[in-house]
Amino acid sequence: MIKLSFESISSTLQTILRRVGFSDERAEQCALLFVEASRDGFYSHGLNRFARFVQSIDLGVVKVDARPELVESFGALERWDGGSGPGNLNAYASMARAIQLAQTQGLGCVALRNTNHWMRAGNYGWQAAEAGLIGLCWTNTLPNLPPWGGTTPKLGNNPLVIAVPRDNGEHVVLDMAMSQFSYGALENYQRRNEQLPLIGGFDSDGELTRDAGKILGSGRPLPIGYWKGSGLSLMLDMVASLLADGKATFGITADVVRETQLSQVFMAFATLAQSREAILSEILAFMKSSGTEVRYPGEQTIKRRKQSLEEGIPVDESVWQEIEALAKR
Amino acid sequence: MIKLSFESISSTLQTILRRVGFSDERAEQCALLFVEASRDGFYSHGLNRFARFVQSIDLGVVKVDARPELVESFGALERWDGGSGPGNLNAYASMARAIQLAQTQGLGCVALRNTNHWMRAGNYGWQAAEAGLIGLCWTNTLPNLPPWGGTTPKLGNNPLVIAVPRDNGEHVVLDMAMSQFSYGALENYQRRNEQLPLIGGFDSDGELTRDAGKILGSGRPLPIGYWKGSGLSLMLDMVASLLADGKATFGITADVVRETQLSQVFMAFATLAQSREAILSEILAFMKSSGTEVRYPGEQTIKRRKQSLEEGIPVDESVWQEIEALAKR
Repeated sequence: MIKLSFESISSTLQTILRRVGFSDERAEQCALLFVEASRDGFYSHGLNRFARFVQSIDLGVVKVDARPELVESFGALERWDGGSGPGNLNAYASMARAIQLAQTQGLGCVALRNTNHWMRAGNYGWQAAEAGLIGLCWTNTLPNLPPWGGTTPKLGNNPLVIAVPRDNGEHVVLDMAMSQFSYGALENYQRRNEQLPLIGGFDSDGELTRDAGKILGSGRPLPIGYWKGSGLSLMLDMVASLLADGKATFGITADVVRETQLSQVFMAFATLAQSREAILSEILAFMKSSGTEVRYPGEQTIKRRKQSLEEGIPVDESVWQEIEALAKR
Repeated sequence: MIKLSFESISSTLQTILRRVGFSDERAEQCALLFVEASRDGFYSHGLNRFARFVQSIDLGVVKVDARPELVESFGALERWDGGSGPGNLNAYASMARAIQLAQTQGLGCVALRNTNHWMRAGNYGWQAAEAGLIGLCWTNTLPNLPPWGGTTPKLGNNPLVIAVPRDNGEHVVLDMAMSQFSYGALENYQRRNEQLPLIGGFDSDGELTRDAGKILGSGRPLPIGYWKGSGLSLMLDMVASLLADGKATFGITADVVRETQLSQVFMAFATLAQSREAILSEILAFMKSSGTEVRYPGEQTIKRRKQSLEEGIPVDESVWQEIEALAKR
C-alpha cells in the first residue's frame, strides 16, 4: 500500500477521464466520487475499480457524454433515462434531482433506468445527508446471488443505502448489499487463507460453510437472513424496474464488465432540522449502551476518512501502477 | 385447532368491539383486519392477539375513538398524529391516505406518530397492492433486539413491508421483522422441543445457538444478517421517528401490553399498469428457475388463504374460548 494525497489522485484520474472524452467539469465530479470512495475505505468501489471503469468506456458500455433525461413526471416521482452514461455521474445527478423535489414537496423520488454501475453506493446517501435530508437509494445488479432454496444466482445483491443527516457532519449512513459477504470480501478471506467469522454460503455439496474459497467455487453466497434477504433482494429489483420502467436483474448480462442498463431508485426526505439532532444522539447513545463493541453504520467510515485525510489515502501499488499507465497511454 | 367461518369470527369480534365503544363501521373494519390476519395464517397477529388488544383498550392504552389527525403537510409527505387510536385502524387510514397522495403525485408518504401496534404488518402492503400500487411501510417497536456487538435489547425488530401488485390479485408481499426468528417462532420451537433450522441467537454464555429456549433465556435473538440487520433496524427507527416527529425505540416502554406511541411510515407508489405484469412474471419465473424449493414472499400466504376460505379459518381452541368469554362479559 502506498499513501497518496486526495489532490494528486484526483488530478491523475481527471487527466485520464479528460483523455477518454469527459468535459473538465464532469471529469472533476467523476474523479471526486472515485477518490471519496477510497478516502472512506471503500477501495473495491474506489480506485481499485477505476481501470475497469475506463475499460467499460473503451468497450462502449459507458457513454461519457450521456446525461439522464426526464422520461415522465408524476409530481414527486419522476422517471429518468440514464442513456448508458457514467453510473456515478448519473446517480449523483439523480439524487440531486430527488433532493430538489424534496425541497418543495417534502420528498422526492427519481427512478432511473438504463444506467451503469454507480460504484460506491454510499456516496449518494452522503450526498443527501450533506444537503440536510434523509436519503434512501438502491440499485439492481446482474444475477449474482442464489435465492433461498435455489442453487444458481438468479437474484442481484442489490445494494441499499439509507442515510440520516447529523449536525456535526458525521452522518449515519447504512450501505449494504443483500449478500452476507461481498465477492470482494470472500476473495480477501480466501487470499489470507482465513475462515469467515460466520457462515457465508454453501459449498458445492450444499453444506453451509465458513470457507470463502468453497463459496467462490460453488457460486452460492448467502443472502442476509437467509429467506429474508432473498425476499428483500427480489422486492428491490421489482420496485426499481417497475418505477424506472427499466431492466430487471433477469435482463442484465451476467458479465461484470458489461453489467449495464441497471435500474435504480433515489429518494430524499425533508426532516425537522430543529429537534433532529437531539433525537438522533439519544437513539445512538441508547444503542451503544448495549455494549462497548456496538458501532453505528458509517462510524468506521468517519474514522477511516479522518485517517486518510491526515496520512494520505491508501492505494494498492499495483492499482496505482495501472492507473499511471492509463494516464500515459 | 377448530375451524370457523370468516363471517362467524368477524361477527363475534364486532360484538366485542362495539361493546368496548367502537362505532359499527370501525368495529367492522377492525374485525376485518384481525380475521384477515388469521385467514392468511398470521395467527400470532390475528385472533391470538385479539384478547390482548381488548386488554389494551381496557387499560386505556388504546383509545377506541381516536383517529389520525394531520399535523403538517409538505406536499407528497404528510405528518399525522395517531392520538393513541387503535393501531390497525390508524395504519389502515394512513396507508389509504398515502395511496390518495400517490394517485395525484406519483407517490405519497404518511409519517404517523403516537399510534399503537398495527397487528399484522402485511395487511397494509396488501392494501396498497389491492389499490394497484406499490406499498412500502414499517413501524418501530419497543426495544426487543440487541444490536450487533451488544448484549441487551436496545433496538426494535421494526417490521418492514414491501408489496408489489399483480393483475391476478396474487400480490408479492414481503413482511419481515429485523430479527431472524420472532419471539413467537422461538416459543413454538421451544414448546415442540425442536432445534431451530439455523442459528437464531446467543445463549447466556454468548455462544451462537440453535436452541430456542436458550435464546429466550438470554434475550439475545439475532438480527438478520448480523451487523446488517442491526444497522437496518437502527435506520428504520431513525427515519420513522424523524419523519413522524414521534417517539423512537428508546422512548417506547419495554412492556408488551403498554407498547404504545409508536412511529410508522406508509408509502405508496404508482406503477405502470400496462407492462407491469409482463415484467413481474418474468422476474418470478427467473428466480424460480434457481430451484424447485424457491418461494416468493407471499406465495405461502395465498395458499393458506385459499385453504382457510375453503375449510374454515383455523383458531386455537383456548384462543376462541377467551374471545367467546369477552363476547359474554
